[in-house]
Amino acid sequence: MPATLSALSETYNHRLAAILPSPIRVIDSEFAQIPGILRLTLGEPDFAVPAHIKEAVKRAVDADDSHYATAWGHVSLREAIADYLATQFDAKYDPQSEILVTVGASEAIYATFNGLLNPGDKIIIPTPTFPMYEAIAEAMGVEVIGINTAPEFVLTPAKLEAAIAEHPDVKAVMFNYPSNPTGVTYSDAEVHAIADVLKQHELLVFSDEIYAELIYDAPHTSIASILPEQTILISGLSKSHAMTGYRIGYIAGPADLMKHVGKMHQFLVTTAPGPMMAAAEEALRNGHQDAVDMRNEYKARRDMLVAGLTELGFTAAQPGGAFYLFVKIPAWLDQDDMAFIHDVANTVKLGIVAGSIFGAGGEGYVRLSYAASMEDLQEALVRLGQYVALKKTAQ
Amino acid sequence: MPATLSALSETYNHRLAAILPSPIRVIDSEFAQIPGILRLTLGEPDFAVPAHIKEAVKRAVDADDSHYATAWGHVSLREAIADYLATQFDAKYDPQSEILVTVGASEAIYATFNGLLNPGDKIIIPTPTFPMYEAIAEAMGVEVIGINTAPEFVLTPAKLEAAIAEHPDVKAVMFNYPSNPTGVTYSDAEVHAIADVLKQHELLVFSDEIYAELIYDAPHTSIASILPEQTILISGLSKSHAMTGYRIGYIAGPADLMKHVGKMHQFLVTTAPGPMMAAAEEALRNGHQDAVDMRNEYKARRDMLVAGLTELGFTAAQPGGAFYLFVKIPAWLDQDDMAFIHDVANTVKLGIVAGSIFGAGGEGYVRLSYAASMEDLQEALVRLGQYVALKKTAQ
Repeated sequence: MPATLSALSETYNHRLAAILPSPIRVIDSEFAQIPGILRLTLGEPDFAVPAHIKEAVKRAVDADDSHYATAWGHVSLREAIADYLATQFDAKYDPQSEILVTVGASEAIYATFNGLLNPGDKIIIPTPTFPMYEAIAEAMGVEVIGINTAPEFVLTPAKLEAAIAEHPDVKAVMFNYPSNPTGVTYSDAEVHAIADVLKQHELLVFSDEIYAELIYDAPHTSIASILPEQTILISGLSKSHAMTGYRIGYIAGPADLMKHVGKMHQFLVTTAPGPMMAAAEEALRNGHQDAVDMRNEYKARRDMLVAGLTELGFTAAQPGGAFYLFVKIPAWLDQDDMAFIHDVANTVKLGIVAGSIFGAGGEGYVRLSYAASMEDLQEALVRLGQYVALKKTAQ
Repeated sequence: MPATLSALSETYNHRLAAILPSPIRVIDSEFAQIPGILRLTLGEPDFAVPAHIKEAVKRAVDADDSHYATAWGHVSLREAIADYLATQFDAKYDPQSEILVTVGASEAIYATFNGLLNPGDKIIIPTPTFPMYEAIAEAMGVEVIGINTAPEFVLTPAKLEAAIAEHPDVKAVMFNYPSNPTGVTYSDAEVHAIADVLKQHELLVFSDEIYAELIYDAPHTSIASILPEQTILISGLSKSHAMTGYRIGYIAGPADLMKHVGKMHQFLVTTAPGPMMAAAEEALRNGHQDAVDMRNEYKARRDMLVAGLTELGFTAAQPGGAFYLFVKIPAWLDQDDMAFIHDVANTVKLGIVAGSIFGAGGEGYVRLSYAASMEDLQEALVRLGQYVALKKTAQ
C-alpha cells in the first residue's frame, strides 16, 4: 500500500485533471448506498446474452482462439460487419481496409478522436450529450463547440449552419442518434438535411449509431449511407445484443481515414479479445431475431412508461429510440434537476440521472433508463407517484 | 467502399503520421508472403491456454458475466492480482485503489503514459526496446530520451545518472525486464542499483514486467518491492499463461497516481471484458503450475537454441528471461541487420527480426523468438546453418 512520493504529486496529465469521472457513474455509485433504492440510472441492457452467442464464445475458447488476432480484428468478423451494414443500412464498406473492430464503442470513440484530430482542433457536439465525447476531446486538447438542441433535442440544419458560421475552422461534428440521453432520434428527412449541411461545408462527421437497432417508430437511416466519404460510423454489439460486458464495438469509414484510426487502435489495445469477437460474429450472422425480440420488449416498456408518466403529469422528449426517456420536471416543482434527483432518491428511493450532467439544454430534465424489467419500471412509476403526491400535499 | 473527400485528406492526427506502424508486424507480414518460410518473428506463445482456464471462461459465460464490470475490473480479479503480487514479488497493493485491470499490457502502457505525462514532458527509454513505448510517447507529444545500453544491454546506474544530468527535467523512466527484444534481465543487485538512482532523483518509473514469470537463471526482483512509492508496475497474463488473445493486463501503483491512470482507462475502454477477466483470475488463483511448466519448456528451448547458435559461430546477449535471443551477426558477415534478415528470409526461408528496429544499440543484431516448438527451432538452426555454409562458400 505505497504512498506516492510527494515530489510526484504533480506528475499527472493536467488536461485529464480538469475532467470529472463519468458523472453518471458517480451518481449511480452514490445512490447505490441507499438501502432499498431502485435505480434506473445506467444504460445497460438487463437481458442475458442469447444462448447461441454464448455457445459461440465457448466454441472459440475450445478452438484455441487465444492468440493475437490481426490488429483490425478477425477478418471473418469484419466481413460479418460489412454484410450487416450493407444489408441493414445500405452502407457499403470493404472489410479489409474500411472496418476496424474495437474494444466497445468507447475505444472506437477514443481511437476516432485521437486518430483524426489534433490538439487545438474544434469539434461540434450537440447537447444534451453522452459526456464521454466531451471528456475525450478535452483530454486531448480538442476544443468543443456545443450546440444546445433543446427543447426538441434535434440538431437542426439552421443551428448547425450557425455554429459552422461562427467557427469556420471546425474540423468535425459529433452525431449520436438514437440519442443518449434523450432517446430522440432523427427521421430520414432530418438525417438528409444534416448531411446536406455537412456536405456543403466538407466536414467530417463522427456518427455514433450504437442504438440503431433500438428504434421504435420508423426505420433508422444511417448517415453513412448518404455521406460515406465524410462519415466515420461508430457502433457495436453492446446495446443490440445485450453484450456490454463482452466489449466489442467497431468503426467503419473511408480507408484513407481509417488507416490513421487503425494505427491509433494498435497503440491503444493491440487488438480485441478473440472469443469476444466470435460472439460478435455469431450475433451479426445469426442473431437478427435476438435484436428484434429485445426491441419489441423495450418498445413495450417505453409505451408503458410514457403512459404512466403522462398520467402523473410528466412530459418527455419524443422517445423514438435507445432505452432512455428524457423527462421534464413539471413546472410546479423546483426546476433544479440535481436537487430533484437527490430528493427523489432520498424520499421514495428511486434513482434517476440529472439532465444537466449531459450539457446545455438538459437543465430541468431527468434521464430514466428503461433497460430494466417491466416490474421494476412499474414500481418506479408507483414511487414517482408517491413523490408527486408528497409534494402536492406539501404545497 | 467510400473514397475520402479530398478536402479531408489532411484531417488526421499529425503526430501519429510520423510514427510507423509496428515494425515487427510489418516485417512479419512481409515474410508471411514467402512460401515455406519458418517465422521466429513474433513474441507470441505457441502454447494453448490451459484447460482449467478455458473452463473458467465458459463458466463466466454461463453465469451471464456479460454486463459492464466496474471500471477498474472485477474486484475478485483485483484481489487475485494483489495476492499474486504480494506472494510472488513481495509487492503489496490495495485491490480497491491501487490495482487496475486493462485490455492487455498495451492499454496499460497507453493509460499509464497518458494518465501521468503531459505533452512536452520527457521520458527516458533505454534501448534496444519494444517499439510501442516510443510510439505512444510520440503520439502524445512526450519527448523520448534514449539511453543506448549496448553491448551488455543492461541499463547501468552510470548511464542513467548521465542521462538525468543532461535532462534534469525528465519526468519518468521506462524500465522493461526481462527485456523484449534482448531477453536480458536484471539481477537483484542491478535492480537495487537502478532503484537507488531513481530514489535519489525522485523519478517515476514505469516498470513493464510482463515477462517476470519467464526467467531462467535467478529469481525476479520487482522494482515495485523496492521503490513502491515511485513505481507504476505493468504486467499481464499474456506471456505467463499464453493468453495473448484474451487481452488481460494490469497496472499497480500508488493510489494518488492510479486515480489518474484509472480515469484515462475509463475514457479508453470503459472496462475490460468480463469472461476474459474470469480467465485471468483462474490463472492467478490456480494456474501457478502452468506458468512453471511453460517456463521449463522455454528454458529447454533456449538452452538448445543457444548451444546450436554457438556451434554455428553466433553469440547472443545474456538470455536470462522472456523468449527472445538477441543475436550478433558474426563479424565476417555484412553487419547491416535489415539486409541480413531479408537475405536469410530469401535464401533459407527463415524469418527473424532486425535488431535496428528496436532502436540504438540494436544495429548488427537480430531478434529470434523461441516462442515456437522445439521442432521448429531445430529446423531454424538447420536453415541458419545452411545460410552460414552458403556465405562461407561465397567468400
